[in-house]
Amino acid sequence: MVRVKDLRWKKDMRVSELVDSYEHVGFQSVELQRASDVIIKMKKDSAKIFLTFTSNMVTSGLRGFFAQLIELGIADVIVTTVGGLEEDIMKATGEVFRIGDFQTDDVELHEQGINRVGNLLIQNESYMNFEDLITDILGKLYEKQKRWTVSGMLREIGLLLEDSQSILYQAAKNDVPIFCPAITDGAFGFHLYLFQQDHPDFMVDVVKDFGNILYATSYDDRKGVIALGGSISKHHAILSTLLNGGAEYAVYMTTAHRTSGSMSGANTSEAKSWGKVKDESDVATVIGDVSITFPLAMIRALDELDSEGLLKN
Amino acid sequence: MVRVKDLRWKKDMRVSELVDSYEHVGFQSVELQRASDVIIKMKKDSAKIFLTFTSNMVTSGLRGFFAQLIELGIADVIVTTVGGLEEDIMKATGEVFRIGDFQTDDVELHEQGINRVGNLLIQNESYMNFEDLITDILGKLYEKQKRWTVSGMLREIGLLLEDSQSILYQAAKNDVPIFCPAITDGAFGFHLYLFQQDHPDFMVDVVKDFGNILYATSYDDRKGVIALGGSISKHHAILSTLLNGGAEYAVYMTTAHRTSGSMSGANTSEAKSWGKVKDESDVATVIGDVSITFPLAMIRALDELDSEGLLKN
Amino acid sequence: MVRVKDLRWKKDMRVSELVDSYEHVGFQSVELQRASDVIIKMKKDSAKIFLTFTSNMVTSGLRGFFAQLIELGIADVIVTTVGGLEEDIMKATGEVFRIGDFQTDDVELHEQGINRVGNLLIQNESYMNFEDLITDILGKLYEKQKRWTVSGMLREIGLLLEDSQSILYQAAKNDVPIFCPAITDGAFGFHLYLFQQDHPDFMVDVVKDFGNILYATSYDDRKGVIALGGSISKHHAILSTLLNGGAEYAVYMTTAHRTSGSMSGANTSEAKSWGKVKDESDVATVIGDVSITFPLAMIRALDELDSEGLLKN
Amino acid sequence: MVRVKDLRWKKDMRVSELVDSYEHVGFQSVELQRASDVIIKMKKDSAKIFLTFTSNMVTSGLRGFFAQLIELGIADVIVTTVGGLEEDIMKATGEVFRIGDFQTDDVELHEQGINRVGNLLIQNESYMNFEDLITDILGKLYEKQKRWTVSGMLREIGLLLEDSQSILYQAAKNDVPIFCPAITDGAFGFHLYLFQQDHPDFMVDVVKDFGNILYATSYDDRKGVIALGGSISKHHAILSTLLNGGAEYAVYMTTAHRTSGSMSGANTSEAKSWGKVKDESDVATVIGDVSITFPLAMIRALDELDSEGLLKN
Repeated sequence: MVRVKDLRWKKDMRVSELVDSYEHVGFQSVELQRASDVIIKMKKDSAKIFLTFTSNMVTSGLRGFFAQLIELGIADVIVTTVGGLEEDIMKATGEVFRIGDFQTDDVELHEQGINRVGNLLIQNESYMNFEDLITDILGKLYEKQKRWTVSGMLREIGLLLEDSQSILYQAAKNDVPIFCPAITDGAFGFHLYLFQQDHPDFMVDVVKDFGNILYATSYDDRKGVIALGGSISKHHAILSTLLNGGAEYAVYMTTAHRTSGSMSGANTSEAKSWGKVKDESDVATVIGDVSITFPLAMIRALDELDSEGLLKN
Repeated sequence: MVRVKDLRWKKDMRVSELVDSYEHVGFQSVELQRASDVIIKMKKDSAKIFLTFTSNMVTSGLRGFFAQLIELGIADVIVTTVGGLEEDIMKATGEVFRIGDFQTDDVELHEQGINRVGNLLIQNESYMNFEDLITDILGKLYEKQKRWTVSGMLREIGLLLEDSQSILYQAAKNDVPIFCPAITDGAFGFHLYLFQQDHPDFMVDVVKDFGNILYATSYDDRKGVIALGGSISKHHAILSTLLNGGAEYAVYMTTAHRTSGSMSGANTSEAKSWGKVKDESDVATVIGDVSITFPLAMIRALDELDSEGLLKN
Repeated sequence: MVRVKDLRWKKDMRVSELVDSYEHVGFQSVELQRASDVIIKMKKDSAKIFLTFTSNMVTSGLRGFFAQLIELGIADVIVTTVGGLEEDIMKATGEVFRIGDFQTDDVELHEQGINRVGNLLIQNESYMNFEDLITDILGKLYEKQKRWTVSGMLREIGLLLEDSQSILYQAAKNDVPIFCPAITDGAFGFHLYLFQQDHPDFMVDVVKDFGNILYATSYDDRKGVIALGGSISKHHAILSTLLNGGAEYAVYMTTAHRTSGSMSGANTSEAKSWGKVKDESDVATVIGDVSITFPLAMIRALDELDSEGLLKN
Repeated sequence: MVRVKDLRWKKDMRVSELVDSYEHVGFQSVELQRASDVIIKMKKDSAKIFLTFTSNMVTSGLRGFFAQLIELGIADVIVTTVGGLEEDIMKATGEVFRIGDFQTDDVELHEQGINRVGNLLIQNESYMNFEDLITDILGKLYEKQKRWTVSGMLREIGLLLEDSQSILYQAAKNDVPIFCPAITDGAFGFHLYLFQQDHPDFMVDVVKDFGNILYATSYDDRKGVIALGGSISKHHAILSTLLNGGAEYAVYMTTAHRTSGSMSGANTSEAKSWGKVKDESDVATVIGDVSITFPLAMIRALDELDSEGLLKN
């Protein structure tokens, strides 16, 4: 059995050293080190990796980190929600988001045309610029074909962006499909609707895209899931692994607890009852803010995978 | 300013009396009483009411309560996720769910063919019976037309059910649309996919349904939101109110906190920065398990609305 | 196994009926109904009951409810922190606390001489009046004897108060000892210190009081714990049951989760490893705001115990 | 206003670099970087620093880190609970604690004589060895004098230990007082009680110790608080700063939220209403598991303070 060992500072400690030491500290630090280990194992075992995250994480500075992970070959399938994709596009086209406060005068922000996501701020102007852009993009897509799957549409958009820190760009460039099961749940949905009003034969085929996520991996593949936050992003990935015999590896990072029975708080143990992850799988659930915990677990994994030559160049 | 007053037990206290007294207790009990008040106000003001909930709440015994609320004319628009709708159908066709434990041997449950949602248990058999049923239903829908919106499809299914405690049944019977922006994110999605494989001209048009939620209320309507839990259910409703000028009333009940910037934890103040609710709106955010808090707030509202003759018969 | 059953509203529902129905709803409502049952069982079994709560609950309107529970013979031993006892005295002498907001301008409150506890407000004046009073009381105690245990001192203070909704008053009147292991951690501590400066032979003997809580129950008594919130109040009670062979019944109600390893979040299962509760004990842990959950569980228990003639008159 | 910037991995990233980048990420990572900054500022400003932590953190591997912080001159006053001090002594005398699981068979652990604190395990044997030791120590203390303050007693015990990773040892050696306002709330309390039974003139004077914490800093000192977790440790420190005019700097790290009005969840804004921290103070509240967040914030602060020659050697 692993012993508790005293954590000790030394000058210029590396992230990997700190996460190594977490193994012996206790509480969530132990789970975080385990999560990092599970990520290393899934990659070394050549598992197909589903990376899922929620929209607010793309609002944050994790956005470029996700793009980098795709570039480095960590993720094979992305599942997320549409709000984040809109913001990835905004950032790719030069929009600047700012750091604010959780406690603020929201009526005043509203008057200033500023929208708040926790302690992050997005200007109305960024949405307006997005809207100009997306109408144009939809026109181009429509010229190519009338009926699109969501993942197909997102790939095309990614190819139009010129930003190496964009999730959509890196995913398109690296042939990593992005699934977004509720594509209409955002400004994007509104513009799809307006476009369809003018072009009634324009169709988004979400049903066909279910086949695409289903065949993105197979029953025979070893599979891993890294689910950040909850929402349908998480559920859609593990529904897909369930239908393919269950994942061998799973890391859940979330602020939600199991006690309300929500998907956000469902842990990797509960996933075993469904067969979403296999009975004998390697799993870890870390409770905490993903903006802190995920970089920690991932940086150690990247350092290790890089040493083993397992990152894509 | 409201005074703190000592709560006192008396024999056979009614729920409404307890919630009345919460106004003077403190912490979340104060917010709960306020939430109950906001619900009463929105109904008295003839606001169009969006009721949103997550799938796990339909797994629970809140399912029949939601159906009753539709029957009583409380909800004008429902937004939810597909897992709950599947389970509403299962229950309507006689499937029994059971109470288990949060802490259990999930590998053993898996071997027994039992799936866990927090402390609730669903048998594989219930899913298998659902699948038999849904294939048949999709066939009937397809005979009527090839292209369906989600809300249109859900209405047809509701009309086929014969269970007055079913959400789908009561919604269909009372002309309350149910929106489900991620219709493929569940067993239902898999069966839509299989059906489309055999019937390539079968289409689910999610884009058109965006117009339906948009026009379910208007800019001129007074609007209220009761959002239980987070997820796209909550977001889709407030996106819709945003596009129609903002809601006058909003009640959020959730276990999530604002501190991670998630949609689940976003409070009614943050909603003001976006214009999802109006600057001068009546709002309340209650932190706690909805299985406890929502019946409390709602029962008091129903008692009051019934006395005023504002419930539908 | 218990079935999930649909919750249904009927006019003028009683609290006890609602809590009865929670048994079949799911998630924390199930735990709350169980907690209510465990409280009923411990009382029917004539267990000695430890009731523990934190200071903020006495700031709230739960204060008079706790006093009533003592009056009705529910609690045999109270453990709490000193801040709440100070506020019980303030309220007993006419001070009024008010309901405010969680989100407020705290610098402005400070300028107005108002102190905030969550969404509750206490005026500086209330503290000043308390201080005048306590100096006088300490003088009277000193005249009686020089060396006091905490529980002895609190009993004397209770006898001086004339408020049937006071915890200290009801405890003194009903021979229920109040233990407060950190008596100096509040304004009271400061005044004990000032008094001792003038009366160096004035001593508060906390060590002797440990014997008092130890012998408040015995190894042979059946014992129950109702721990509301965390803190040393909770720990001190279960340390005492541990040293007396473990409790047969335990109900924990808290907002804290097990995941950080804190005492506040430690559940009744963890307590078994220590022998704080017995292996075969009846236990329940309810996650949620005590201002909502405790009245619910307790009112149902009181209705039932009253019907059985088990409440003290 | 600070911009959101994409986080990017580079090989062998240092902890300080990661925390630097958190400033631009969002949500709790922003607060964590701010907390690290506030710690740096309080030290650079020669503030007297109160470091408070709960017992479970000493069960964990943070224990040696706290000792190191005292050694490096970071903390001027320690406030904690007695359980942690018992465990510091156990560890100093060679007892080994182990890493277990949050979800485990606690009845089986009980049979094996193992006590669980979250996912950490302590053997009964460690307690028995502690008890042998403490009886002996109390005898020695009694020979010196009959009446002890808690901080005086803890200092003597620290001097008897020979472990440079012990909190008590480093505190004693570096003249840093340790306050523990509920000294009887643990095994230590039981042994004080037994000892007093045999030596009735043995007295622990908690009232006098209130003066010691009061005069550990003065009204004129600049003061800083680093409060990890909640409990009376946190409250006792800020009560002390309140009585000395308020702190100029405060960092709260906790898993508790403001929503229940508890001391654990009370944030640095609420502290301003009381004057516990000054109106214009530099403050940060970080929500998350301290086993992860505190090392991050502190390591960056130590790297920086070391570069500036501000650490004690």
